[in-house]
Amino acid sequence: MADSSKITAKLEKAKAEGRVWWSFEYFPPRTPQGLSNLYDRIERMGKLGPEFVDITWNAGGRTSDLTASLVKTVHAYFGLETCMHLTCTNMPRSKVDVALREAKEYGCRNILALRGDPPAGGGEWEPHAAGFSHAYELVQYIREHYGDYFTIAVAGFPEGHPEATEGPEVEMEQLKSKIDAGADFIFTQMFYDFDIFADWVRRVKAAGITVPIVPGVMPIQNYGGFTRAIARFRTKVPQYFHDALDPVKEDDEQVRKIGTELVGKMCRKILDTKDLDVHGLHIYTMNLERGSRMLLEYLGLTPTVNPPLPWKPCLTPKRREENIRPIFWANRAKSYVNRTEFWDEFPNGRWGDARSPAYGDVDAYGAQLRFSQEDALKLWGTPETLDDLKGLFERFCAGELASLPWSDAPVAKETKVIDQMLVQLNKRGFLTINSQPPVDGARSDDPVHGWGPKNGYVYQKAYLEFFVSPQQLDELLQRIEKHPQITYHAVNAQGDMRTNTTSDAPNAVTWGCFPHCEILQPTIVDSISFLAWKDEAYEIGRSWARLYGQDSPTYKLLTSVFDSYFLVNVVHNDFKQDLAIFEPFLQDALPDVEKLQVNGK
Amino acid sequence: MADSSKITAKLEKAKAEGRVWWSFEYFPPRTPQGLSNLYDRIERMGKLGPEFVDITWNAGGRTSDLTASLVKTVHAYFGLETCMHLTCTNMPRSKVDVALREAKEYGCRNILALRGDPPAGGGEWEPHAAGFSHAYELVQYIREHYGDYFTIAVAGFPEGHPEATEGPEVEMEQLKSKIDAGADFIFTQMFYDFDIFADWVRRVKAAGITVPIVPGVMPIQNYGGFTRAIARFRTKVPQYFHDALDPVKEDDEQVRKIGTELVGKMCRKILDTKDLDVHGLHIYTMNLERGSRMLLEYLGLTPTVNPPLPWKPCLTPKRREENIRPIFWANRAKSYVNRTEFWDEFPNGRWGDARSPAYGDVDAYGAQLRFSQEDALKLWGTPETLDDLKGLFERFCAGELASLPWSDAPVAKETKVIDQMLVQLNKRGFLTINSQPPVDGARSDDPVHGWGPKNGYVYQKAYLEFFVSPQQLDELLQRIEKHPQITYHAVNAQGDMRTNTTSDAPNAVTWGCFPHCEILQPTIVDSISFLAWKDEAYEIGRSWARLYGQDSPTYKLLTSVFDSYFLVNVVHNDFKQDLAIFEPFLQDALPDVEKLQVNGK
Repeated sequence: MADSSKITAKLEKAKAEGRVWWSFEYFPPRTPQGLSNLYDRIERMGKLGPEFVDITWNAGGRTSDLTASLVKTVHAYFGLETCMHLTCTNMPRSKVDVALREAKEYGCRNILALRGDPPAGGGEWEPHAAGFSHAYELVQYIREHYGDYFTIAVAGFPEGHPEATEGPEVEMEQLKSKIDAGADFIFTQMFYDFDIFADWVRRVKAAGITVPIVPGVMPIQNYGGFTRAIARFRTKVPQYFHDALDPVKEDDEQVRKIGTELVGKMCRKILDTKDLDVHGLHIYTMNLERGSRMLLEYLGLTPTVNPPLPWKPCLTPKRREENIRPIFWANRAKSYVNRTEFWDEFPNGRWGDARSPAYGDVDAYGAQLRFSQEDALKLWGTPETLDDLKGLFERFCAGELASLPWSDAPVAKETKVIDQMLVQLNKRGFLTINSQPPVDGARSDDPVHGWGPKNGYVYQKAYLEFFVSPQQLDELLQRIEKHPQITYHAVNAQGDMRTNTTSDAPNAVTWGCFPHCEILQPTIVDSISFLAWKDEAYEIGRSWARLYGQDSPTYKLLTSVFDSYFLVNVVHNDFKQDLAIFEPFLQDALPDVEKLQVNGK
Repeated sequence: MADSSKITAKLEKAKAEGRVWWSFEYFPPRTPQGLSNLYDRIERMGKLGPEFVDITWNAGGRTSDLTASLVKTVHAYFGLETCMHLTCTNMPRSKVDVALREAKEYGCRNILALRGDPPAGGGEWEPHAAGFSHAYELVQYIREHYGDYFTIAVAGFPEGHPEATEGPEVEMEQLKSKIDAGADFIFTQMFYDFDIFADWVRRVKAAGITVPIVPGVMPIQNYGGFTRAIARFRTKVPQYFHDALDPVKEDDEQVRKIGTELVGKMCRKILDTKDLDVHGLHIYTMNLERGSRMLLEYLGLTPTVNPPLPWKPCLTPKRREENIRPIFWANRAKSYVNRTEFWDEFPNGRWGDARSPAYGDVDAYGAQLRFSQEDALKLWGTPETLDDLKGLFERFCAGELASLPWSDAPVAKETKVIDQMLVQLNKRGFLTINSQPPVDGARSDDPVHGWGPKNGYVYQKAYLEFFVSPQQLDELLQRIEKHPQITYHAVNAQGDMRTNTTSDAPNAVTWGCFPHCEILQPTIVDSISFLAWKDEAYEIGRSWARLYGQDSPTYKLLTSVFDSYFLVNVVHNDFKQDLAIFEPFLQDALPDVEKLQVNGK
């Protein structure tokens, strides 16, 4: 596995590039619903461009399994690097070993080694009989048993440790002992006073500690949270913070706005004070989104690193090199990761060598409808006629509906350029579930289509996937015959396949050309994976139908559609012809649609 | 190996596409010089688009080894499919076995089974005691021992076999016995009378023979050759041939012109007469070029099939799937094939898996200067100063010199678009030995840049390779720093390497996007193969120097250059910027050169 997943390597790289980086800390929530929401949030906040995310170890140790499982999920589904906290609290060495083994297994190469808070319920901190008394012992243990595999971070306390009584010199010795034991860098406790931080950093350096220091920053999200946090950690807050916030403390919006300015100015001063040598910010999100987002916006920090691929890679160790996927799961990435979890390898990261893999069962991993009956009814109601059904698909394509049974999320940004065409298609009975417009050499930093290393160009072939009746399919395929650049596969629930392709080999539909690189071709269409996806696509339709009573008109409509309709994928291979993929669908269409086509060319 | 290398498959495909095809027959020459010339000719005539080439078995059997070696060379170096003749004359079964084994080993899947002429020196044809008496026995033997591996052709005689006395019915029975023994199609003996051919074809069909019939056509190249051939094969020639040719028989030019018209009209009539079901022509070239070329031009037949890759593939069995090569050997393809002959495999046809292969020795396979002392002196004279040397490189780039020590052939067609820039580079001391202009999505049927399946687009990154002095290299690399899209490798004879790349991975510099295909990326630049090429490039320079006396100014000039100069490759990774690769070389250049750059953009 590449060392580039180690935070130390990331920090060096960002520093060499003169770039400011940031990371987000989250804690394991206490309820299943909270966990589900946090997953959504981590995924969404991933787009804000954190260099890594940091998952705390629950103070009481009750949720330690949840910490590991969060790390796993973030690697597997969200493609973000992680740092995992590990504390001495209530941890015999055997539990430390389990946690480190799991971290390694899931692809995490960064550990924040802490003594930890006293267990929930109060009382003094006490070491576990078979565990460690100090963070430096934990650091030592990790280094002894795992060599250089992990980057190890330790905590620094600019205002002094809340429980410490020995004074700053002793604390500095303790920090030094952690570094001497093998720690690679320092995360600080939160603070709101620039001078305290700057003074402490200079003392750390004067003590001969040369590892990078990363300030921990807590955005001010609302007045209650702010006052609870500073009380808990006994944080010293400059008077001008209070002067600015107290008058508006009842107005959350104003608190966030003024708080963002206060914290933002402090961060800017830290980054601008050269002798502090600070190049990144570790943000205590408190599992909230808005304050972190506003702080980054205030500082003018936006993701500078493009996504490395057009889809989120899976960062578990054996899949890190994976660089090619079928397009069919584009809107159900988690299902794809699950259904291919047991593939032994992705040789050279290439699909070609794994062309006939055993996709996991459709049923085994929730590869069915991902919506509860309640959500489904709220979203899609009770369609009773084909027109009702078309209407749902039209509204989804127009951006008026947040999801369809086959799409976990609203239509992608890039689909916007063809959404009016898609609405027309659905009006005509082509029930679209996936699509992409053609792209002819957009820059790799293009905000809509870009991905991959900078100074490159990215390309796409136009793609459409839909359900359609057998009668309409016959007519369509006749019209497609006149378009030699179009290839298609059509299959019904029974597995009857029609195609005009002559080979099972993959068709690259997304690729990119970059400096000093092979051509990357991360998204493909091929018949074998299409057949695996077909089972899933029909099963989703059937499980949607099953939400309704067997005598209901909705059940009857949906089952008759999915029993008889074909699932069709269509690729227009000439990516230089803008909207040509729509021609065989809309050639009998209204004048305004024809105009759309001509304009597109 | 694909069945597509069998002629039967090719004939079916051409017929399905409504396309006329042609093939060229050559015979093994009797002198080494003749052989060398024939190799050049076969390679050059390969560009006329023959579906395959056909190598005769020497009538006397003396040159049978040469036949196999011709087949091998055509497959390995020229990337053309072959048909190999095999006769019964003087051939014990053991020799037949050797010939078939060799054909298989070299990648030939097509055999023309013949009884053969009597041995040279005259006398009646007599069977070999351990051999075969009739072609049908040879056909039977091949089918019994090689199953369907080979396509088997047999000869047909529209005018009757020259030695036959039994009459047309018996001959038809003999033809039928060859087909019944397992032959797949028929090549005919040459003829000049449409009616005789048409009548014979209809009789063949009436006899129940349904295999394809391919007329053998001999262009009229000069009067002497024409009369000797018709005398030897007792060919019946219509009176109007004589009437047209006899008056101009002393004028070769006129004979070829009128002869082309006469033969061309006959061919056209054959192709246009539907019931004959003829879709291709087998051309007896007599190892000459001009007549065959004129005949094809007269018939309006030009290569319709694009080259499948930008370089000629090697059609020996284990290399057929090879689809990626380093750019460095672009002008010395044979040396590349030789130096990689012993690679065990090209897994999946991809370079990536064979990134560190053991290139054969520079010395082992003539990977040195491919020119005799005489040729070298004639071509390059005795350069005594650096300006003399620059002048040679300038003239080569301007198309005024047919070769350089590093280039077997004149500058490629596509280089024409940058030849004036290259001349400027050489004037300034960058001694260029390889280059390609950028291409941003030319159609795959583009006459200059096109390759690969139809309806695709092909791309190139601009590439330059040259020798340059260490001082100039220093200046150049400083200027290159301001061009983030340029990557380079520089190495001297001692192996000191300088590069701004951060990875050994290949940089794709030629690639193509085609319907229902993965992206093909057949040409790459990478550091490991560059180091292998470096040894060869310097050895060529040193062997050029060795042609001159050690005290001569030329020897001293060349050795001092190749002892101190760096070999440099430069890639401009932005293929959308026309002439940007020249900017760091010519930024201090004359106004007209600057204008060239601006126009190029």
